[in-house]
Amino acid sequence: MEKEKHLEKLFELLRIKSISALSEHKTDIKKACEFIKNDLIEIGFNKSKIEFLTDGRADSNPVIYAERIDNPENPTILIYGHYDVQPVDPIDEWKTDPFEPEVINGNIYARGATDDKGQMYTHIAALKDLSEEWGEVWPVNVKLAIEGEEEMGGETIEHLINENPEKYSANVCIVSDTGFLAPDKPTIEYGLKGLAYMQINVKLSDNDLHSGIYGGAVMNPANALVHIISKLYDQETGKVLIPGFYDDVVEISSEEREKLSQIPFNKETFLKEAGNAKDTFSEEGYTAIEHSSARPTLDINGFTSGFGGEGAKTIIPATASAKVSMRLVANQDPKKIANLFREFVTSIAPTQVDVEILEIHGGNGVLVDLNSKYIKIAEEALEEVFGNRVVFSRSGGSIPIVADLYNKVGVDVILIGYGLADDNLHAPNEKFNVDQFYKGIECNKTFIKKLIK
Amino acid sequence: MEKEKHLEKLFELLRIKSISALSEHKTDIKKACEFIKNDLIEIGFNKSKIEFLTDGRADSNPVIYAERIDNPENPTILIYGHYDVQPVDPIDEWKTDPFEPEVINGNIYARGATDDKGQMYTHIAALKDLSEEWGEVWPVNVKLAIEGEEEMGGETIEHLINENPEKYSANVCIVSDTGFLAPDKPTIEYGLKGLAYMQINVKLSDNDLHSGIYGGAVMNPANALVHIISKLYDQETGKVLIPGFYDDVVEISSEEREKLSQIPFNKETFLKEAGNAKDTFSEEGYTAIEHSSARPTLDINGFTSGFGGEGAKTIIPATASAKVSMRLVANQDPKKIANLFREFVTSIAPTQVDVEILEIHGGNGVLVDLNSKYIKIAEEALEEVFGNRVVFSRSGGSIPIVADLYNKVGVDVILIGYGLADDNLHAPNEKFNVDQFYKGIECNKTFIKKLIK
Repeated sequence: MEKEKHLEKLFELLRIKSISALSEHKTDIKKACEFIKNDLIEIGFNKSKIEFLTDGRADSNPVIYAERIDNPENPTILIYGHYDVQPVDPIDEWKTDPFEPEVINGNIYARGATDDKGQMYTHIAALKDLSEEWGEVWPVNVKLAIEGEEEMGGETIEHLINENPEKYSANVCIVSDTGFLAPDKPTIEYGLKGLAYMQINVKLSDNDLHSGIYGGAVMNPANALVHIISKLYDQETGKVLIPGFYDDVVEISSEEREKLSQIPFNKETFLKEAGNAKDTFSEEGYTAIEHSSARPTLDINGFTSGFGGEGAKTIIPATASAKVSMRLVANQDPKKIANLFREFVTSIAPTQVDVEILEIHGGNGVLVDLNSKYIKIAEEALEEVFGNRVVFSRSGGSIPIVADLYNKVGVDVILIGYGLADDNLHAPNEKFNVDQFYKGIECNKTFIKKLIK
Repeated sequence: MEKEKHLEKLFELLRIKSISALSEHKTDIKKACEFIKNDLIEIGFNKSKIEFLTDGRADSNPVIYAERIDNPENPTILIYGHYDVQPVDPIDEWKTDPFEPEVINGNIYARGATDDKGQMYTHIAALKDLSEEWGEVWPVNVKLAIEGEEEMGGETIEHLINENPEKYSANVCIVSDTGFLAPDKPTIEYGLKGLAYMQINVKLSDNDLHSGIYGGAVMNPANALVHIISKLYDQETGKVLIPGFYDDVVEISSEEREKLSQIPFNKETFLKEAGNAKDTFSEEGYTAIEHSSARPTLDINGFTSGFGGEGAKTIIPATASAKVSMRLVANQDPKKIANLFREFVTSIAPTQVDVEILEIHGGNGVLVDLNSKYIKIAEEALEEVFGNRVVFSRSGGSIPIVADLYNKVGVDVILIGYGLADDNLHAPNEKFNVDQFYKGIECNKTFIKKLIK
């Protein structure tokens, strides 16, 4: 198939507003599922072998599960990806319509361009091309699990894998939801962080109050929330102050420090890619690469209270709310961390306001075995297609399901991502490089060919 | 004139969306001015004696200045009020359209119902009634100064008064922009707080960043802003920590403490009126009444950063912004306080992010002489019309212009407010009691009649 055809198909998928975090996009979730199903039928998957699996909750977003097993003796590959995307706000900062993809200077601009529709589609496109070569009988068995809740915690697929791990068994699982460390550094991630995502809601009253009349007589919930959060984190040292938080963290070994120090890091380029960030900042005693890849973090993801418009409004807000998430290293248990968070916040919460603590979601971290033969195959495929040496890195990102596939299904998970560092993941103006898309398709084909050799 | 006619006229004024803080409402500001001008012409003000005064800035909201001086020998009264209103967000929490007034259970629900269109209109309505009694020659000289920037700092009227204080001179100035301490406690305010309203903007980058990729490598601007604000204020003691903040605060005397302790305070009722607030909270060593009326405060009025929607978004926000205002007691200079704030925030601001400090506005506090004969007249008028003893109180609210009228024009300023404690000023479901409106008109008429006797 001509590669432009693949791009056209991807554009169709990118136009679907499948934002999982916002319930008003439920029909878009359905549209994305139908689109992918039709595509898989076109490739040669049997209609009866394509399922939309939910965990039984009314609002569960389906996992698209498909399989084609022409000969059980052949090796089996499981391809994981996700069709859901992040919300688009702040919408004002987008230079193009996030759901009307455009190619500008060799990049596809759209929400989900790289995370993960574009990357996921490199696998569907590779299968399309290969199926044309293969004809009636495929020399490899293929399973696909494309989920719709990756951006909101992946509850459905986690449930499905726990219920029936055998269904997802394969010789190797390949995931493209990460990226290159630099345009000339094809990268295989061997570590991913876990996540504990919390929300704190503080309520004083049913409505905002006049700060002149009530100031000094009641507790301002925004002041109270600032007080609480300031006790969670030491801004000077970058250390988390929740008691017990570091108990299960394995100290970075000198060997790993050595390896991490070999990852290329140009501060100027890094800051430019980070939206022209002013400076780097990391935990006392650790470099930016060490902290972001192998040490846990605590970040406010959002803080909402009172008046945010132009000018002045002299109120005491009725409520204040913050989203606070912690990226965890492999040994930290997200449930335990969420409990430590809850206990500590409860212990320091003032009594003059109502303080509610919500667990929005959690996921385990993972460290993949670097000696797997599939890592070797992936390394060769990447080097052949991209013409550069592969680097191995630990990422600060989380793909909750990778931990389950690795630990519960027992399948080797290979993380080959085709994104680039300035792709604006989760941010306005998300993009995916067109060359990376085309070479990604080639690389996936090469990987499968090597697998069946 | 029949009193229902006054109510109809007030409704027309309340329908005008004259929000001064939002620039898109500039045409509504003009509409409000024209409406009041036409009304004043109807009462008997000469068209040529009604001016729209600005300070020369392109976006200055006019002060409606009107005067009618039939005989310079007669006493002169200056009526101050404002036609601008607060923004209406959060709009979802309104039970009625904020700009379509409705009377429900004897209350007028609308933005500006009590602050200040309804209260201001008690004076226009009183003059209408009196002008019908008086006929061709008025036995009192009347000046009106109705401004359109009270809710955003009153820059224009401050400028006008400083340029030409003589124009605003009168025997007495009457202001209705405060309220009763309880429905059976007509109240004269003798003290108002000053205000220093600041904004802190923290910027890390041009766009939100993926918290997995960048967490631990850059400084989260929301974390940084929480750190800064947590150092401004001691949540345990309720004290402001900005060095020098309390230097000019005059300690409350034992006499004043005694007086303030006589103000009726029912905690249960107070909390109910405060939107069912959970509890009271005040500075260590001071009661809620003492802190709210005679001690300075520091409140976050708004905090905006990152993702505030449903679910999770794993970002490091590009920016974080907070509005922080301090209500000041009479001796504190808002400019000095703004400088102390700026110096302190600058001294603790991390260098890895950009920190910008804005002064949104400031205003002086005031303490009025309780021995003024006009205070006596006001007390008599209130007691005659409302049938209850007057209480004298210091308010935590600010009416920046009152300080200028008292200190620069040298006119005795009498604060008679007809609002009630549960009127939801600056909040959703603002209301004004219809009886208070009608009795307010009567009280204003009685005050003028006593003035000319």
